[in-house]
Amino acid sequence: MKYGIIGRNGRMGNEIYNLFSEKGHDLVFSYDKEGENFLETPEVLIDFSLPTAFEKVIEYVEKFRCPLIIGTTGLSNEQITKLKELSQTLPIIQSYNFSLGIQVLLRLVKLADKLLDDVDIEITETHHRFKKDKPSGTAKMIKEVLNKEVNISSLRLGNVPGDHTVYFGNLGEIITISHRALSRRTFAAGVLKSAEFALKAVAGFYTFQDIFELTKEE
Amino acid sequence: MKYGIIGRNGRMGNEIYNLFSEKGHDLVFSYDKEGENFLETPEVLIDFSLPTAFEKVIEYVEKFRCPLIIGTTGLSNEQITKLKELSQTLPIIQSYNFSLGIQVLLRLVKLADKLLDDVDIEITETHHRFKKDKPSGTAKMIKEVLNKEVNISSLRLGNVPGDHTVYFGNLGEIITISHRALSRRTFAAGVLKSAEFALKAVAGFYTFQDIFELTKEE
Amino acid sequence: MKYGIIGRNGRMGNEIYNLFSEKGHDLVFSYDKEGENFLETPEVLIDFSLPTAFEKVIEYVEKFRCPLIIGTTGLSNEQITKLKELSQTLPIIQSYNFSLGIQVLLRLVKLADKLLDDVDIEITETHHRFKKDKPSGTAKMIKEVLNKEVNISSLRLGNVPGDHTVYFGNLGEIITISHRALSRRTFAAGVLKSAEFALKAVAGFYTFQDIFELTKEE
Amino acid sequence: MKYGIIGRNGRMGNEIYNLFSEKGHDLVFSYDKEGENFLETPEVLIDFSLPTAFEKVIEYVEKFRCPLIIGTTGLSNEQITKLKELSQTLPIIQSYNFSLGIQVLLRLVKLADKLLDDVDIEITETHHRFKKDKPSGTAKMIKEVLNKEVNISSLRLGNVPGDHTVYFGNLGEIITISHRALSRRTFAAGVLKSAEFALKAVAGFYTFQDIFELTKEE
Repeated sequence: MKYGIIGRNGRMGNEIYNLFSEKGHDLVFSYDKEGENFLETPEVLIDFSLPTAFEKVIEYVEKFRCPLIIGTTGLSNEQITKLKELSQTLPIIQSYNFSLGIQVLLRLVKLADKLLDDVDIEITETHHRFKKDKPSGTAKMIKEVLNKEVNISSLRLGNVPGDHTVYFGNLGEIITISHRALSRRTFAAGVLKSAEFALKAVAGFYTFQDIFELTKEE
Repeated sequence: MKYGIIGRNGRMGNEIYNLFSEKGHDLVFSYDKEGENFLETPEVLIDFSLPTAFEKVIEYVEKFRCPLIIGTTGLSNEQITKLKELSQTLPIIQSYNFSLGIQVLLRLVKLADKLLDDVDIEITETHHRFKKDKPSGTAKMIKEVLNKEVNISSLRLGNVPGDHTVYFGNLGEIITISHRALSRRTFAAGVLKSAEFALKAVAGFYTFQDIFELTKEE
Repeated sequence: MKYGIIGRNGRMGNEIYNLFSEKGHDLVFSYDKEGENFLETPEVLIDFSLPTAFEKVIEYVEKFRCPLIIGTTGLSNEQITKLKELSQTLPIIQSYNFSLGIQVLLRLVKLADKLLDDVDIEITETHHRFKKDKPSGTAKMIKEVLNKEVNISSLRLGNVPGDHTVYFGNLGEIITISHRALSRRTFAAGVLKSAEFALKAVAGFYTFQDIFELTKEE
Repeated sequence: MKYGIIGRNGRMGNEIYNLFSEKGHDLVFSYDKEGENFLETPEVLIDFSLPTAFEKVIEYVEKFRCPLIIGTTGLSNEQITKLKELSQTLPIIQSYNFSLGIQVLLRLVKLADKLLDDVDIEITETHHRFKKDKPSGTAKMIKEVLNKEVNISSLRLGNVPGDHTVYFGNLGEIITISHRALSRRTFAAGVLKSAEFALKAVAGFYTFQDIFELTKEE
């Protein structure tokens, strides 16, 4: 596919570029603080930049009339509303977490919770020492999926990219479901899956969980 | 319920007696090397003894005309055939593993396998030093559920009751699903669930997986 | 050896009796709520009862003039002082944790802490749902050994006998040291080791850590 | 310090350059397939290249008369002999594994083995799917340190940089010591430690284990 990136030189921009190149996709447009680089009109636009670049993002989407995958964090309610407006005529995919494995973890956790009775549940998450917030957003997502009061333990340790574990224990046995991110590449893979989906999708507002559910029929 | 045990003084007989008593059920019949102890006709009969006692088991089932839960290992094909004959008129539940958690593990493993692409899969199992066979029967069940060539690593360690772990890994992330037995109590709980099921079941031959599937609708 | 137990019918009393019997030692004296059972004067006395039985314990030690291993929890300062007085003429071994493995864990943690620079340290402990206190006494012992401010995460899960893990992480690697109790038997083994030590020891007041250090020369 | 790298553009050359720059050290010489880049005579020379460049390495060491840290794998016996000759007048540090954590793991494993009796020992190692050899060299080092027959289980999983775990289990408890590499950075840190050591060392042939032992007094 022919794609464009806004935030091309950021950490995620780089990861996306590397994975997409490896898979034979062509970067035909990019935009960053340094300015724009236009070769051709992209079939899909990817944004991993900052909320301050949001107006520029909208401008480009309206110019190219192509689907948008947006992973920029910290969007305001007004910005989300604007995306939903756009989604009436174009596919817009918005998420704060593009990891396929975390979506699988959530599904497994839901199933385990349904199948097990009389269990205690505990969540642990381990991240690098630079992470300021406790608990992680993903741990909160897990708790939400369980929809009950669950204790979350947060460990801050060296340079761990991100581990999440959910324990279910009763008087006879323990079941544990864990996810360990090895690198940022996994997030780029989720963006690629989203871009492939977007090319064939009808107009609408999608989260990464929607992509996951729609492309993986049980 | 009013229940009977054949193999009352064995390890599993003991565990079953303790759990059933705790839950308010009455042992009204038992049979062991020491002989029989009859108070009343049981509503359900449980057998955790030896294949050599099989004829006695059949004799009692035919006398009491009640459902049978049989966890005795090493049954011959003829003995299984005999059980199937009996199951035309009575509910017969036969299994070599009455752990609820292992059934949940199998379900989780199946779901993870369906949802994940391009993953390597590895299975590890850890058991006490006295276990002679490698790999464990449960590890083989997991491999069967995956229905593909998967490496199984067997660890023999001290007095571990039984740990099983399945790893799914791609280039970006690892998902792990583990089961750890804390004690034999978990198997007794599976027997209780089976007995409760048997009281309401129509005649037929059931495995523990059937019980699990039939009593836990997704 | 010929030994006696005070608190013979308690959980630990039972475990001790089972292990000591297996190893060929003779129970020649016991005392419990039900009363005393005297066959012969013991060479060593073991107390796992309640602080309320403390006077009786002292009475028997003075009568038998034999070493005492005391694992009863919740002793008052006065009671400890009384033990120290007794230790001027007899070996007295007092501890709240008779696990050999925990002593090994402490030694490993000390060594890792000495060898590693610029690491974050995290402690987790997992215990059964019935445990009321958080964090566990053993987790506090680990923190004391490290002698620095360390975060402890406590998980309460089913019927886990007791897991403790210490993580050391820097920007490149993680080292983990874990201890998992499989059963109460491990504590009985520590009592046996203490009893063997006591038979040959000079008068004095010992903790279980002393026994461990004195019997295991590095 | 002023240092030089042979194999500057390789994966390890890059990691070393990044870490050394971060710590304020100056690359004053480099050599690679593309040719040499000489700014100043280095105080220490680092080689992470190929055995085919060995003659060039020796040539530069003799020209600069400076210590050498050499991590190139697959050296022949003749090449090792040549290094030992050189080490009569210069410090030469040679190793196939510059991870500090693995050295700590080896020390912990040795201590645990000394302190524990009647244990079963198991080793597991997990590496990315591209690793061809089983078991890993590091797992073999662990086995050598234990100096007894120990089972090694090898898992090949996605893109795992390298996990090693040693289990010690008896009838009552399990002790586990694990090492998990997060990235190549840890190896660069070992090279830096070696370079700092080399600047102050007397002539001699050292392995990384020597550096570790000499700089970390227990």
